[in-house]
Amino acid sequence: MRKFVALLTVSFVLSVQGGLSSQSVGGLEAARNYVDKHWAEVLEEFVALLKIPNIASNREDLWRNARVLLDMLSKRGVAAEILEAGGAPFVIGSLEAPQAQGTLLLYAHYDGQPVDPARWTGSHPFEPVLRDAGLDDGGAVIPLPVVERPNDDWRLYARSASDDKAPIVAMLVALDALRASGVPLTFNLRFLFEGEEEAGSPNLQEFLKQYGTRLASDAVLVADGPVFITGEPTLYFGARGITTLEITVYGARHPLHSGHYGNWAPNPAMMLAELLSSMKDSDGRVQVAGFYDGIVPLSPLERTYLDRIPRVEAQLMADLWIAQPETSARLVESINLPSLNVRGMNSGWVGEQARTIIPDSATASLDLRLVHGIDPSVQEDRVINHIRQNGYRVVGEEPDAMTRAESPKLARVVRGRGYPAYRSPMELPLCRRMVDSMEESFESIVVLPTLGGSVPLYLFHKVLGVDAIIGVPIVNPDNNQHSPNENLRLGNFFSGIETFAVLFSSKAEESR
Amino acid sequence: MRKFVALLTVSFVLSVQGGLSSQSVGGLEAARNYVDKHWAEVLEEFVALLKIPNIASNREDLWRNARVLLDMLSKRGVAAEILEAGGAPFVIGSLEAPQAQGTLLLYAHYDGQPVDPARWTGSHPFEPVLRDAGLDDGGAVIPLPVVERPNDDWRLYARSASDDKAPIVAMLVALDALRASGVPLTFNLRFLFEGEEEAGSPNLQEFLKQYGTRLASDAVLVADGPVFITGEPTLYFGARGITTLEITVYGARHPLHSGHYGNWAPNPAMMLAELLSSMKDSDGRVQVAGFYDGIVPLSPLERTYLDRIPRVEAQLMADLWIAQPETSARLVESINLPSLNVRGMNSGWVGEQARTIIPDSATASLDLRLVHGIDPSVQEDRVINHIRQNGYRVVGEEPDAMTRAESPKLARVVRGRGYPAYRSPMELPLCRRMVDSMEESFESIVVLPTLGGSVPLYLFHKVLGVDAIIGVPIVNPDNNQHSPNENLRLGNFFSGIETFAVLFSSKAEESR
Repeated sequence: MRKFVALLTVSFVLSVQGGLSSQSVGGLEAARNYVDKHWAEVLEEFVALLKIPNIASNREDLWRNARVLLDMLSKRGVAAEILEAGGAPFVIGSLEAPQAQGTLLLYAHYDGQPVDPARWTGSHPFEPVLRDAGLDDGGAVIPLPVVERPNDDWRLYARSASDDKAPIVAMLVALDALRASGVPLTFNLRFLFEGEEEAGSPNLQEFLKQYGTRLASDAVLVADGPVFITGEPTLYFGARGITTLEITVYGARHPLHSGHYGNWAPNPAMMLAELLSSMKDSDGRVQVAGFYDGIVPLSPLERTYLDRIPRVEAQLMADLWIAQPETSARLVESINLPSLNVRGMNSGWVGEQARTIIPDSATASLDLRLVHGIDPSVQEDRVINHIRQNGYRVVGEEPDAMTRAESPKLARVVRGRGYPAYRSPMELPLCRRMVDSMEESFESIVVLPTLGGSVPLYLFHKVLGVDAIIGVPIVNPDNNQHSPNENLRLGNFFSGIETFAVLFSSKAEESR
Repeated sequence: MRKFVALLTVSFVLSVQGGLSSQSVGGLEAARNYVDKHWAEVLEEFVALLKIPNIASNREDLWRNARVLLDMLSKRGVAAEILEAGGAPFVIGSLEAPQAQGTLLLYAHYDGQPVDPARWTGSHPFEPVLRDAGLDDGGAVIPLPVVERPNDDWRLYARSASDDKAPIVAMLVALDALRASGVPLTFNLRFLFEGEEEAGSPNLQEFLKQYGTRLASDAVLVADGPVFITGEPTLYFGARGITTLEITVYGARHPLHSGHYGNWAPNPAMMLAELLSSMKDSDGRVQVAGFYDGIVPLSPLERTYLDRIPRVEAQLMADLWIAQPETSARLVESINLPSLNVRGMNSGWVGEQARTIIPDSATASLDLRLVHGIDPSVQEDRVINHIRQNGYRVVGEEPDAMTRAESPKLARVVRGRGYPAYRSPMELPLCRRMVDSMEESFESIVVLPTLGGSVPLYLFHKVLGVDAIIGVPIVNPDNNQHSPNENLRLGNFFSGIETFAVLFSSKAEESR
């Protein structure tokens, strides 16, 4: 492992105590005051970061991101370094607070999902464009740099505008804000920015093992994911795990003319359709044997918070053009169950490229979201067993001629690299402190036992031994995360700065 | 309509009676003798034609093909012209025979299916490559031009090597061969080469209406499709019709993060899988109501020929790596039924491009092969009704937001431009004459009541009023027609030249 120490000389010493400190100004006001004055430079720094492509497959681009993040930390007085553990570089940092009542580890990732620029509307994923509303609402382009105080409903379009560069910038601006208002930081802070979260964090575990002592903390704040659909400030205490399966079924050795062989030769597209449709019933319930076995049930406290979550399904359906959900269960109930999702399906050709053949194979890519108590490989095994129970011979490698000629139903199944879910006990003092400080500062907040998306929370618990792993999502739920036209609503960004400022200055119960 | 007359001065007058004419030499021997001497120039002319790209979407390329075909006809003394009827140019020609016992119209097409060069192995679709065996058998490249007598098992790889430029060259070489041996032509010949057959022959009907009197004939020979799987010389007396449907089903307004919405938001890939799987039972029988209604049954004579067709299923399964066909019926029985084939299916992304989203739509492209008695639009209606019976609202255009938000199950269905099947009565004298001449010349032949592939035979019957529409397929069945690595086995090409020579010199019953 190589080690890169920040070359920037940190001559500035952060003083959270000096200057205009006042007991009457809290984290929330500090953040608001700061953004009111410094919105131009805040956006400038953010846009510059978004311009650096961050697809996992391009290592050089990830390094460019890491070096910029190193500078962003260093110039704020954070002792920062770039470290490697076999894959994309990690950026870590450390900031001590004289009045600390504990240590927080802040985790975020700077890599993004793959992009398909042809499917973006009117802009390129790595050339950020600001609009005065969402694209669906006819948002017009606002030239950058911005020359007036941004409106909360403006949106910034770029890959990772939401997932996950916004939280990185927001937490650093929160530091600036606290300092500018002289509000004391109540935690020592540790920073950890990863560059391969979207690739399944293949080296995070090894990294934490190697450098865990430098990241020792009382709680981990994971800065990723959208706030709840209502837009209220949100905390989550668990996240679903994930794994993937790619299933390919086979027909004849090559595509056949559909006239000369149609209705006689087997059609793998049709076979795949039959196999997939066997996996769920009409209420969206997964029919794979054992699929729901082993789930750790919600505690009474978790159930209490779940029940408090506003009913948003009707609004969500209208916003997303959904006439009928897959299930009659509430969204937040669904999210506390493991899922089986067909994320992609391909066979032969459609549209302009369509030709009259019987395809030689058909492929579906599934993602399986996991909840606390279900192991990734166990869940993969269950689906693979289901495929076998449907009469398929299952192989792991591309099958040879003999295997294909011998097997009436043949499926190649490739397992992804998954990880399990984790859920922090909400009863822990640090969990309570985070919730209390948020409830004191904001009119209303949402507390989720489990985030639907997957974040490797389990690793921090497993390797660092920290029990309190708390999600701090800040971005808008309609951000098109992982898709074309990813965007960030600026109001959420500003609110995110407030959230971090509140959490970084929250007081332990005994000192309040 | 514009009209292009061949500029080439035809100074040469074809004399099928002059020279070395001998009663002992028939069409078969004439063809064999000719190829033995002239294989080099025959292949040279063929390869030159294959080098001209012929995808329907590029009109300029089609014109280049037409001009070369005009020259090929003209230099053989055929009065040839290029004519237009709104789309790709038609090439027609006319050759009178002093000893004619009838007039034959020869139809073939010079356009090809779309290509996906990335999926071709070791060669480009429009840079023909000759190999000493098929690719699957490790065929090695033989440099062009060829310097030794080609082996029958050599294969020429190029788009349209089989479908459908081989028959065009074969019939013209057959003329050369008859002339060289002084074997009398027993038919006046009319030529019709189309340039948009793979696009569904959208202008053929209009063209035949306009120019039908110039194409007046007693029988039409349609030169397209592969010989039967046994490789024996083949005639067919009917062909399936075809139409297509493209079905798109919808989920949310855009792709959604599969974590935050997975198992709650509807998944159109799964919905499409369910819909498609409802269309067939486990024996490949189509479950769409009325799908088999209206089929004109085979006559006793047709049934007799069908029963004579060799049992080839076991060999075919071994060759194509098919462990189990879709149906327990014989291939030739299947082909006399209408088919429903999923030719393509697409939703979200798979493989390297896969991302963890719930797709916003899923599309399947179906082709429906039709048999004699079933109208294309009636068959489309039946499938659309099936979709409705599965709870779908069916629309023809891209649905708007309101339609999507209101419809729990919504399908957009786009109808293709199809055409019906046709089957000539085998009892007609001209049909008998063709079969008899083939049976006299070859050790064994295969007579198919219906070809599995689609050829617009019906149009010649409908517009020209000709009842005897006879298919003369010559290419190898494993030619990868419509797919990557399309190829022609040279033995089939040479045998095709023999077939045309035999047919062009066949005698009417009363004169034998």
